[in-house]
Amino acid sequence: MSNRNIDAGALIAVDWGTSRLRALLLASDGRVIEERDSDDGIGSLSGGHEEAFERLVLGWPMASAIMAGMVGSRQGWREAPYVSLPATVPALAAKLDRFVTDRGRSVAIVPGVMLRSNRRDGDVIRGEETQIIGLLDREPGFAGVAILPGTHSKWVSVANGAITDFQTYLTGEMFDLLAHRSFLRHSVGGDDASLSERPGFALGIKRTAAEGLPFLAAVFSVRARALLDQVDPADNLAYLSGLVIGGEIAAAAAGGSDRNAEIRIIGAKSLARAYARAFDLLGRKTGSLDGTELVTAGLVHLARAIGLIPGNDRP
Amino acid sequence: MSNRNIDAGALIAVDWGTSRLRALLLASDGRVIEERDSDDGIGSLSGGHEEAFERLVLGWPMASAIMAGMVGSRQGWREAPYVSLPATVPALAAKLDRFVTDRGRSVAIVPGVMLRSNRRDGDVIRGEETQIIGLLDREPGFAGVAILPGTHSKWVSVANGAITDFQTYLTGEMFDLLAHRSFLRHSVGGDDASLSERPGFALGIKRTAAEGLPFLAAVFSVRARALLDQVDPADNLAYLSGLVIGGEIAAAAAGGSDRNAEIRIIGAKSLARAYARAFDLLGRKTGSLDGTELVTAGLVHLARAIGLIPGNDRP
Repeated sequence: MSNRNIDAGALIAVDWGTSRLRALLLASDGRVIEERDSDDGIGSLSGGHEEAFERLVLGWPMASAIMAGMVGSRQGWREAPYVSLPATVPALAAKLDRFVTDRGRSVAIVPGVMLRSNRRDGDVIRGEETQIIGLLDREPGFAGVAILPGTHSKWVSVANGAITDFQTYLTGEMFDLLAHRSFLRHSVGGDDASLSERPGFALGIKRTAAEGLPFLAAVFSVRARALLDQVDPADNLAYLSGLVIGGEIAAAAAGGSDRNAEIRIIGAKSLARAYARAFDLLGRKTGSLDGTELVTAGLVHLARAIGLIPGNDRP
Repeated sequence: MSNRNIDAGALIAVDWGTSRLRALLLASDGRVIEERDSDDGIGSLSGGHEEAFERLVLGWPMASAIMAGMVGSRQGWREAPYVSLPATVPALAAKLDRFVTDRGRSVAIVPGVMLRSNRRDGDVIRGEETQIIGLLDREPGFAGVAILPGTHSKWVSVANGAITDFQTYLTGEMFDLLAHRSFLRHSVGGDDASLSERPGFALGIKRTAAEGLPFLAAVFSVRARALLDQVDPADNLAYLSGLVIGGEIAAAAAGGSDRNAEIRIIGAKSLARAYARAFDLLGRKTGSLDGTELVTAGLVHLARAIGLIPGNDRP
């Protein structure tokens, strides 16, 4: 390995989730030198994490690695502990699981965050905390709610530079189960690329989020609309999507989420657009940020905080 | 066919659902002479309904048949129309789909009931209306809510001898999807025969039905309990069951179901027991009736109303 390489690559930032392993070689100023990914997600591995990682970064300099996501879960490389609320950036940095591999590489795995509450029976995030750190890197004074839509959608309350509360919803998985695995599959159809543009989506949002129809009381209507009104299957899929996303928004409001809070939607473009559209229908403003960029920003921020790369020590 | 047989069997009452075909040969006083069933449910047939029926009743007298359930759906033998609300017994009797088969057998298929509402986008029942007629046959003055738990749980409001409102919940299917098809399947286990006796069931009911935690906000706790507290998988399955059934009860209350209404739970024993236990935990009294018996009572009641067998004409 040449000195040129070592100088050129100061840190490897790793987003290691259930289905993908993604690594970025970064310069000491945080600039991306090279990006690689593979399908060696945590869900497809049983052991061999170090080998899977080294395979991906073969030829890169022996820089320190900082990793976020399911890599720190019980099924991951090493279980990184959960930090309690309120979870500040220094607290998360202090609980990084740091170790040196047999090859001599220094690795740090970001901890998750756990919640205990009298109102419900616990909740956890793992991976999203790093995106929140990225959000705070971009908007240091942010106070409000960050929504991270997906298979398991997370609403994260942020104030004073810390995660103060959060809530997980099974929205993406619920939609998928109902649309593709339940008897409602006979009443919906078409693709789901631009569902949020369809009238059915707006009607679904109206029912559950604006009018307060409980999600469990609303969902059979998908069948009734097909049966009684021969609704177009693609519009009915959009209606189901609206009911589920609207149900999530209503549940958050019922759970005490501040209706006037600043909202940042963090995620992939099409899903973020559906959420932005839902809030727009409800007359609420939102801002959107790219989830992938925020993971990198969060990892760089943490790496700076513990001195893996030079930089200020702001928490 | 001998006269003895014709005298002995005055009516064939048929409960023809998605998975089962069940026929009872009845005397003119409603007494059951013989019962038979087969797995020729509507879900497994594509045409050939008359043949499937005649196969089952081979050797029985050429009595008139009255049928309830999915036999009257679009996928059934003939589509029997839906009656609007309020659905009285005479209105249901008047909309019976009556025809004579090529073999010369007189058949009547019970219509379903449909709902239109500004608050939601339609609802339907098919089969349950006959159980409600059976309930009204047993308790002519009943006013309150009849709950028919199952894959698709129905809450039916009854007053002045009519169905005045109803609501379908996907409770059974939702439980099955979450317990067996979602990622929560890794956090639950054991059998579900006596779930409602377990502490987890009571906790789930408390969360969603007593404390008002929205179902969508509650369900991820199933995972968190396994992860953070290593809860016994069987108790966690009971907790999920409590969340779903409690979510149904809460949704019904939010939808305007009268909290002081008389409740009759109509169904199979183990499921009816879980619902009775849920209401008991909430301090509400219920009565339970056997669903199979009520279908027969409803069919006999309708047969009398249209003169297929002798009897009073009470509606």
